[in-house]
Amino acid sequence: MTQTPDPTTARLSLEERASLTSGAGTWTTAAVPGTVRSLTFADGPHGLRRPVEGQGDALGLNDSVPATCFPPAVALGSSWDPALARRVGAALAREASALGADVVLGPGINIKRSPLGGRNFEYLSEDPHLTGVMGAAVVRGIQSLGIGASVKHFAVNNQETDRMRVSADVDERTLREIYLRAFEHVVREARPYTVMCSYNRLNGVYVSEDRGLLTDVLRGEWGFDGLVVSDWGAVNDRAAALAAGLDLEMPPTGTDAEIVDAVRGGRLDEAAVTRAADRLLGLARRVERAERHDGWDVRAHHDLAREAAAASAVLLKNDGGVLPLDPGAAQRVAVIGELARTPRYQGGGSSHVVPTRLDTAWDALRGAVGEATALTFAPGYRLGGAPAAEDGGAAPAGAELLAEAVEAARGADVALVFLGLPDHAESEGFDRTTLDLPRDQIDLVRAVARVCPKVVAVLANGGVVTVSEWRDSAAAILEGWLLGQAGGSAVADLLLGARSPSGRLAETIPHRLADVPSYLHFPGADGHVPYGEGVYVGYRHHDTLGTDVAYPFGHGLTYTRFEYSDLSVRETGHDAWRVEATVANAGDRAGQEVVQLYVAFDEEHPTRPRHELRGFAKVALEPGASTRVSFTLDGRGLARWSVSRHGWRVAAGPFAVEVGASSRDVRLRAELTARGDGAAEPLGRMSTLGEWLDHPVGGPLLRRRLREAPRRDGLTRADPALAAMARGIPLAKFRTFGIGLSVEAVDGLVTEVAALIAAGER
Amino acid sequence: MTQTPDPTTARLSLEERASLTSGAGTWTTAAVPGTVRSLTFADGPHGLRRPVEGQGDALGLNDSVPATCFPPAVALGSSWDPALARRVGAALAREASALGADVVLGPGINIKRSPLGGRNFEYLSEDPHLTGVMGAAVVRGIQSLGIGASVKHFAVNNQETDRMRVSADVDERTLREIYLRAFEHVVREARPYTVMCSYNRLNGVYVSEDRGLLTDVLRGEWGFDGLVVSDWGAVNDRAAALAAGLDLEMPPTGTDAEIVDAVRGGRLDEAAVTRAADRLLGLARRVERAERHDGWDVRAHHDLAREAAAASAVLLKNDGGVLPLDPGAAQRVAVIGELARTPRYQGGGSSHVVPTRLDTAWDALRGAVGEATALTFAPGYRLGGAPAAEDGGAAPAGAELLAEAVEAARGADVALVFLGLPDHAESEGFDRTTLDLPRDQIDLVRAVARVCPKVVAVLANGGVVTVSEWRDSAAAILEGWLLGQAGGSAVADLLLGARSPSGRLAETIPHRLADVPSYLHFPGADGHVPYGEGVYVGYRHHDTLGTDVAYPFGHGLTYTRFEYSDLSVRETGHDAWRVEATVANAGDRAGQEVVQLYVAFDEEHPTRPRHELRGFAKVALEPGASTRVSFTLDGRGLARWSVSRHGWRVAAGPFAVEVGASSRDVRLRAELTARGDGAAEPLGRMSTLGEWLDHPVGGPLLRRRLREAPRRDGLTRADPALAAMARGIPLAKFRTFGIGLSVEAVDGLVTEVAALIAAGER
Repeated sequence: MTQTPDPTTARLSLEERASLTSGAGTWTTAAVPGTVRSLTFADGPHGLRRPVEGQGDALGLNDSVPATCFPPAVALGSSWDPALARRVGAALAREASALGADVVLGPGINIKRSPLGGRNFEYLSEDPHLTGVMGAAVVRGIQSLGIGASVKHFAVNNQETDRMRVSADVDERTLREIYLRAFEHVVREARPYTVMCSYNRLNGVYVSEDRGLLTDVLRGEWGFDGLVVSDWGAVNDRAAALAAGLDLEMPPTGTDAEIVDAVRGGRLDEAAVTRAADRLLGLARRVERAERHDGWDVRAHHDLAREAAAASAVLLKNDGGVLPLDPGAAQRVAVIGELARTPRYQGGGSSHVVPTRLDTAWDALRGAVGEATALTFAPGYRLGGAPAAEDGGAAPAGAELLAEAVEAARGADVALVFLGLPDHAESEGFDRTTLDLPRDQIDLVRAVARVCPKVVAVLANGGVVTVSEWRDSAAAILEGWLLGQAGGSAVADLLLGARSPSGRLAETIPHRLADVPSYLHFPGADGHVPYGEGVYVGYRHHDTLGTDVAYPFGHGLTYTRFEYSDLSVRETGHDAWRVEATVANAGDRAGQEVVQLYVAFDEEHPTRPRHELRGFAKVALEPGASTRVSFTLDGRGLARWSVSRHGWRVAAGPFAVEVGASSRDVRLRAELTARGDGAAEPLGRMSTLGEWLDHPVGGPLLRRRLREAPRRDGLTRADPALAAMARGIPLAKFRTFGIGLSVEAVDGLVTEVAALIAAGER
Repeated sequence: MTQTPDPTTARLSLEERASLTSGAGTWTTAAVPGTVRSLTFADGPHGLRRPVEGQGDALGLNDSVPATCFPPAVALGSSWDPALARRVGAALAREASALGADVVLGPGINIKRSPLGGRNFEYLSEDPHLTGVMGAAVVRGIQSLGIGASVKHFAVNNQETDRMRVSADVDERTLREIYLRAFEHVVREARPYTVMCSYNRLNGVYVSEDRGLLTDVLRGEWGFDGLVVSDWGAVNDRAAALAAGLDLEMPPTGTDAEIVDAVRGGRLDEAAVTRAADRLLGLARRVERAERHDGWDVRAHHDLAREAAAASAVLLKNDGGVLPLDPGAAQRVAVIGELARTPRYQGGGSSHVVPTRLDTAWDALRGAVGEATALTFAPGYRLGGAPAAEDGGAAPAGAELLAEAVEAARGADVALVFLGLPDHAESEGFDRTTLDLPRDQIDLVRAVARVCPKVVAVLANGGVVTVSEWRDSAAAILEGWLLGQAGGSAVADLLLGARSPSGRLAETIPHRLADVPSYLHFPGADGHVPYGEGVYVGYRHHDTLGTDVAYPFGHGLTYTRFEYSDLSVRETGHDAWRVEATVANAGDRAGQEVVQLYVAFDEEHPTRPRHELRGFAKVALEPGASTRVSFTLDGRGLARWSVSRHGWRVAAGPFAVEVGASSRDVRLRAELTARGDGAAEPLGRMSTLGEWLDHPVGGPLLRRRLREAPRRDGLTRADPALAAMARGIPLAKFRTFGIGLSVEAVDGLVTEVAALIAAGER
């Protein structure tokens, strides 16, 4: 882990080096004239946020310079399209370059542990594999221009409640299998220039002071060679943070002199300061090679935002093929809902972008339909209504809006009802307390359904909303999430069939909040949030328990249908396979299928999720066309984290690969057997009789010794309950129970079996 | 915690003292001639197990001397009758005295975390209050004769799988509110002479070496003044165990000399040895005062076992009042099921008793019915069938038995079908893997139901079995658990109405295993078992989530019905209340009602179970009679464990008391308000803006300062999302965000508010 500092760093004075470990301003790093210039960060997981001159602050209170607002991560994650994510990343970098930023603060890749998470709209998925692959694509895109990415928020920052203090109490296995997995993937595969450390504590320790995480795991195990920057305000103790491996405090607190004092006073190793300064110089060298642009093609980026939005919306339901509408047909279409003309397209907080343009669905629909189609609009509700669970009922004004909307829908052939969460319902900084839509909106869609046979619900929400209470009122539901500045046009494209929906759920839609696995633990109390559900997050919970859900992970309809066939699995090495399947477009429209690969473990008593996503591929197919989709699977895909080994372990034994269209729609399945990582388990004094007897080396040895032993009482009796009890007893304890295995005999066995195992491995 | 040793102890040599810290034999302590005699332990949570001369061993491999087999804890816990439990305890002590034992190893009071727990038949309940009250009653009964009790297994020993090594990984709050609570109650209220420490580890530390548990909590907080004895074989490191507060290793491992060496070598404080020896002398002095008896009235103890068994069986269902049967009626009764003539009445392992007599239901029924009743018997199945989940179907021999049973039932007025788990299905030493009855038994009851209109199922099982798959086949279900040696007679008493059922479920019967809160975590892997469900054990989980269950905690029918009225709540002090209600027998038979008091917290986002049992009373009422039932409730009954304070905390605010007949059958309810423990929360630099603003002292102070401050940007803006975000930010962090609260200003506020709080408390 020790690196020799760059000669340039070594020439700097201690004061200069210390000055480089905190920023110069809210968005800039310190300069050392003649050695390193000041670098600039910009918020920007889905669009650049650069302050208007002289108004910079970190809370997002003031306006920023216009930039393209791409679909936030909640949408982009639902595209299941890494190539698209990479293009969006490259566009972000282009705008960063044009706006004078060196590093884009994104992507955000925390796992959506609870759908209540206030910042879920900034995150990609409930699944670490999907998150990791999509996050790596964004990083690759950003860094393809030489601009730096900052993967955030590392780590286990899965809620906004008390985020600056709360301790996420997570067991080691869950940490590795769920909450670190996407970070590991992104760091190993996309090599981000920076990682942003989160505010929270992890098992009692502030992440900004957690050497195990910031240094041992991130650098030691994963090979990260970039700079660790604090989330804005995440440092509590600068010396402790530097010692742990946090390189840069942002924004500065004017405490560099304290760092110098700490070194001089012997309270901080000077090497920690040198190392951090060296990493800043390293970052500066990297971004110095970035492409520099004066501007960007605003129209082209808007079009990319529109393409991405169309690829991200998820068609949940489409009974009787009500969608797409024929834009040329003679029909009366009622467009209902304030959100059709006042779109909600991004969330609040540090990711808030001032867009270059803003499309509304109402304008886009009017521009796209032919003369034969009669469009009417009624707002139906006011944005700002309280969620269903918190509201006593619609206000009188709401009743008038509802009546007006019902009149607009009466006699219409189709009603497009735009529903969603108002701005104040979700934002960085606090978590939601309900999954329900506002009560007046639920009343609206139900009332419209009573007068209009075909209702299409179009949703705009950054976090999951429940649909079970009202979905019977809608023939079709298009979940648009937050779609960025071109979302209005993209929705019109999808509704009218100019594009085919191709998004898939990156998170489960449960029937009710109490079905969410973290429900009883989230967001904690007393400064702690227990991660009691362990690895059973999202579909891992629902599919293992068999819980009914509204729409499962991976679900999404298209305007065509796909058939799966010809699964083949070829072993390509030790615990390595190539999995292939044929997917055909069996419908009469072009469309995209997201083929999903799960690895499944059918255990009567689960010790791991019933299945886990290990691969996916989005393929576009014309009607009648088919393609062969290929995945690779290796031992890591089968591994579970072993707490006793503190490492990944592949056990020998049966498993299955599943290929399908969602976690609940498996089309093809093959049973396989893993060989395992082959390490013979060590046996010791505290290994149980059962472990000894079942061991390939220890079993025969022990049986031989027992045959020679003077007393063997119960061990040879036929009573099955007794035998089961005896199997659970460590060998060293048998002497306690009057059975003839002395301390010496057990120690002899341990020595002998270790020698035999060692001989076998030679 | 430091006690001056008895002068007698101080006179002993180090070798003599060391010799007293382990046993002399499997069941006996060491003697020091002239100072202390050897004391004798006996297994015996529900009956004495004393080895036949010369055959002693600890695994229960050999036969023991006959003693009364009272109903195991699973049944006694279901009686909800502390007075009865005390009488059983006294009878155990009488037999212990007669059989030469000084200490009875029981009661077992671990919480039934999972219904799969292999030793659940030795434990009382899923609820710590019920467990604590019943456990204390047994201890009081045993010690009423001066014989010692040994409360076990301390602590968090909730499974058999890997019990000698597994680490129960439990958060502090769950530990206090669920797993230590019953131990605390028993230690404080019944003052047991000894506590038995469990095999397992707790959060990584062997309990036998856990000073925090064995000394700080047990003695320091709860005032325990007796002796801590190891479970048989639970010591791994004698010196560490002595240092932690484990006083006596059982059985001995012949390592006393190592203890002497450790003291001489400075690796063990001599005071630890002296303290342990002193506690053994203390125990010896206590049991020296015990009543000494040569024998007991075998008939009277058998009758007590019969009374206890009748009070423990739970009538789950009784459609159309099919029970009780009229023993004098002209009727044909088919008695079906091997268990009717080969009773299963206790579990396997160290608690296994050789009974003085053994009643079967078949014999008892034949002896009790009049001549007009025609009884026939068919075995229906063989004991030894595999559980439903593990069996491919009934063997051919089973098919014949089933056909014979169906023939016996055809044309019968009533079929009494005895079902249950075979001996090998549950025992100390391993956990169950299914909650299902054997498949052949399920097939049997269904087949019988097709030919006989009235089926009464009588169950014998130590752990919960699911009933949802077959309960529609039975008009009545009597859950007998394991009822001890007089269970057969007791069941006949209940079926024929000689006694009225009065047991209530001490644990929930779920629909299926996957509904059990610990399902995804039990029994763990890799040496660890995460207690991920936290405090949500049993009904605490089901009632908070609203999960449908087969039969809820507290449920049980009688042959009459009870009405509840006139709830009154009187405040008797600061957060202290007397709760009273009238219960009337509104039916036409005598019966006993178990009136249950729950404290309820209705939180939209639960931070605690929806309600928790805090009191109960079993009352016997003749038809038409009524009585006033009274409970006391105090602050501890409302408290939750605060992890930040490491103590119990009563928050001010609303709650409710519920009085009812089960956790799902609340009859009366009153809303109350707790005043709280009144401690003003301290405010510090890391207290959030919201905590400051909401604080009775800090709020006004901060508002005053903010009005005086030069910049207040966002804080006064109307944007609710922004305000919510700001409320979550610790005061010390605002400087980071360019808002005018300097380090000095914040420190000044902290000092000022502390002074104001202190002034307010004076």
